Amino acid sequence: KLSLGVMLPSLAIMGVACALGALITFYLLPSLTPMFIHAQLFGHDLSKVQGRQIRTPESMGVITGCVFLVLTIVLIPVSFSDYFSLAHKAAFPHAELVKVLAALLSIACMLLLGFADDVLDLRWRHKLLLPSLASLPLLMVYYVLFDGTVIVVPVILRPLLGANIDLGLLYYLYMGLLAVFCTNAINILAGINGLEVGQSIVMAASILVFNVGEMDGSLGHYHRFSMYFLLPYLATSLPLLFYNWYPASMFVGDTFCYYSGMTLAVVAILGHFSKTLLLFFMPQIFNFLYSVPQLFHMVPCPRHRLPAFNAETDRVQMSLSVFKQQDLRFWGRWILYVFRMARVIHYREFVKEEEVWVECNNMTLINLVLRICGPMHEQTLTIVLLVFQVFCSVLAFFIRYPLAYLFYGEIIA
Amino acid sequence: KLSLGVMLPSLAIMGVACALGALITFYLLPSLTPMFIHAQLFGHDLSKVQGRQIRTPESMGVITGCVFLVLTIVLIPVSFSDYFSLAHKAAFPHAELVKVLAALLSIACMLLLGFADDVLDLRWRHKLLLPSLASLPLLMVYYVLFDGTVIVVPVILRPLLGANIDLGLLYYLYMGLLAVFCTNAINILAGINGLEVGQSIVMAASILVFNVGEMDGSLGHYHRFSMYFLLPYLATSLPLLFYNWYPASMFVGDTFCYYSGMTLAVVAILGHFSKTLLLFFMPQIFNFLYSVPQLFHMVPCPRHRLPAFNAETDRVQMSLSVFKQQDLRFWGRWILYVFRMARVIHYREFVKEEEVWVECNNMTLINLVLRICGPMHEQTLTIVLLVFQVFCSVLAFFIRYPLAYLFYGEIIA
Ligand SMILES: [Mg+2]
Ligand SMILES: [Mg+2]
Repeated sequence: KLSLGVMLPSLAIMGVACALGALITFYLLPSLTPMFIHAQLFGHDLSKVQGRQIRTPESMGVITGCVFLVLTIVLIPVSFSDYFSLAHKAAFPHAELVKVLAALLSIACMLLLGFADDVLDLRWRHKLLLPSLASLPLLMVYYVLFDGTVIVVPVILRPLLGANIDLGLLYYLYMGLLAVFCTNAINILAGINGLEVGQSIVMAASILVFNVGEMDGSLGHYHRFSMYFLLPYLATSLPLLFYNWYPASMFVGDTFCYYSGMTLAVVAILGHFSKTLLLFFMPQIFNFLYSVPQLFHMVPCPRHRLPAFNAETDRVQMSLSVFKQQDLRFWGRWILYVFRMARVIHYREFVKEEEVWVECNNMTLINLVLRICGPMHEQTLTIVLLVFQVFCSVLAFFIRYPLAYLFYGEIIA
Repeated sequence: KLSLGVMLPSLAIMGVACALGALITFYLLPSLTPMFIHAQLFGHDLSKVQGRQIRTPESMGVITGCVFLVLTIVLIPVSFSDYFSLAHKAAFPHAELVKVLAALLSIACMLLLGFADDVLDLRWRHKLLLPSLASLPLLMVYYVLFDGTVIVVPVILRPLLGANIDLGLLYYLYMGLLAVFCTNAINILAGINGLEVGQSIVMAASILVFNVGEMDGSLGHYHRFSMYFLLPYLATSLPLLFYNWYPASMFVGDTFCYYSGMTLAVVAILGHFSKTLLLFFMPQIFNFLYSVPQLFHMVPCPRHRLPAFNAETDRVQMSLSVFKQQDLRFWGRWILYVFRMARVIHYREFVKEEEVWVECNNMTLINLVLRICGPMHEQTLTIVLLVFQVFCSVLAFFIRYPLAYLFYGEIIA
């Protein structure tokens, strides 16, 4: 076992390398924007007065992603240097290196596929296919390593299932679904300046704090590896947040959401703390569940669900979906009824041309915040959402330990 | 050690998977072309009568590259399945799996960077930087594994250097340079329909034959791993050749040249037969050396060195570089003198407006073939060049074994 003291030299090298990586990213990003504009990789920021006239470079996440990959790859010797001092090869943790490389391969594939999505503008069904493909390296390597597919059963279910259960193939399905969920969950909580990078940074930083806390525990080496991914990730994402913050001079693209989600997913899979990871994803899980009625077209869904921009007040307000009441099927009516009871939706009926029309806000966390707090400046909205993300992370720490004790009779990841 | 007999079941599974991969590539490529055109990823085939009017999708290699990666990743359990039968984990070759994953990571990074180059149109200096970055995973992993940097010294140098020499850091430099060379060597022997894919397929097939021949030798397991890369590579490249063959309905892009070169390089590094690989690269080495005077601007170099198209005869002919004789510096004059003596260049001096001008063919293997054989149809030119590539492969087999014996006193890779 390696304590923080033993790790200090390699952490110092990592710190220097990450600071260097952050600097490189900071200067590289603006210097490459002309290439992105030239390659037609730009968008218009519709929540700005002059937005339609200005070309904002899109998919800049591919640059931070590449620097992140180079940084983690170059740091491989550092992250394994503690084992060099053990002096003989036999102790070298080959299986750990295999997992780290599989994780890097998954992230690299996700970055490639995400960039391909940004460039080629793939369809919705591909958004589920691409992360599945990118998670294959990890699944295959877990399979080849004969790695455990056994999970600990919660106390209340033990009379039924026993203390441990071998999930077998279901475990691989779970890992694949985790990758698909994490990538897309970040991708659908998006659309205002700074939110994609901001939330990812909050989550990565939360996991980092969690890792540092667990580092001296019995599963400490898992948490060390997680840090070796998260420090370079944060170092390369922070400069991107600088440029993506209101008023954004660059957009991050699906590329960024994809590889960020994949990085968090692989780190959790490698570190055996995927359930804890999901606690940090609470806002994204809520946003996903809240979006389900529109995503699955139970309630009519416009092409874009971004908040609406009011140029006169320079504020954003919730965007609306307007449709005939008779277009709602059974499930749609039922869901709107439940949402109205729970007071989590703006709902208005009105008559036009002798037909009953329904108006409701688009079902995203962003629009819900705007419904509760009223119209606000775009930057304020980002800050509100990020503060909520931080609040959820704090909550996650408070519920994780008692919850784990309650369910498992011991604190495990 | 595993003989062909033991490998038969896993080879059969691989064969089926590769056939499936080839089929998927065959149908996927044309179905995705509209997306490439829409994303402005197209070019004009200037060696066709209607070339300027037709948009030919560019960078289609990214698709074959993705299918290739997915195929190799999915086949990881198959390629290691022979070790499953050894029944206990201790025998599992973790170090081998580490190298395979590092190789895949290098190829994935090269595919990503190559696609980024195609989309963003990077500059010449990046063409050297990108393969170096992509080769980092392999270099880092070799370093971490404490893998040997010792090479066997040729017999004639042994009195001087001893039987073995530890190259140390130079060995990593050699590996990095090999990656840079292989990627760019394919990229500069390009520009006519079918040539990039054709030459890569000939080289990959040659190495495959070499691997099959060496499989029962003492280093057999190295050659097995090489096959596990080359079969999926060939399966996904052959359909691309079909569409890229004269008259090409799609272009392969720098993407394809980059990841093909990287695949051949990592396979040779993993298999410890990089010197043999270079024998199969003879036409590319010649083309590179012949191009050096223009690449390094010792002789004036036009922006494009493609053969010139004659619409009336539907043939291509050598393209020319025309410049004032006084623009030549010392090295340029000297090189042109040597090339004229060796009769490997078209050279003509003429007087225009009281100044002496020089006309010579652009220094590529393609233009040299056109100088020797005269103008010909584009398809014929591709066939001539591919036949030459096959001839060089046959030559490589004939000189490799006697040569190795002469230099090392034994046949080693
Ligand atoms: Mg997209
Ligand atoms: Mg290019």
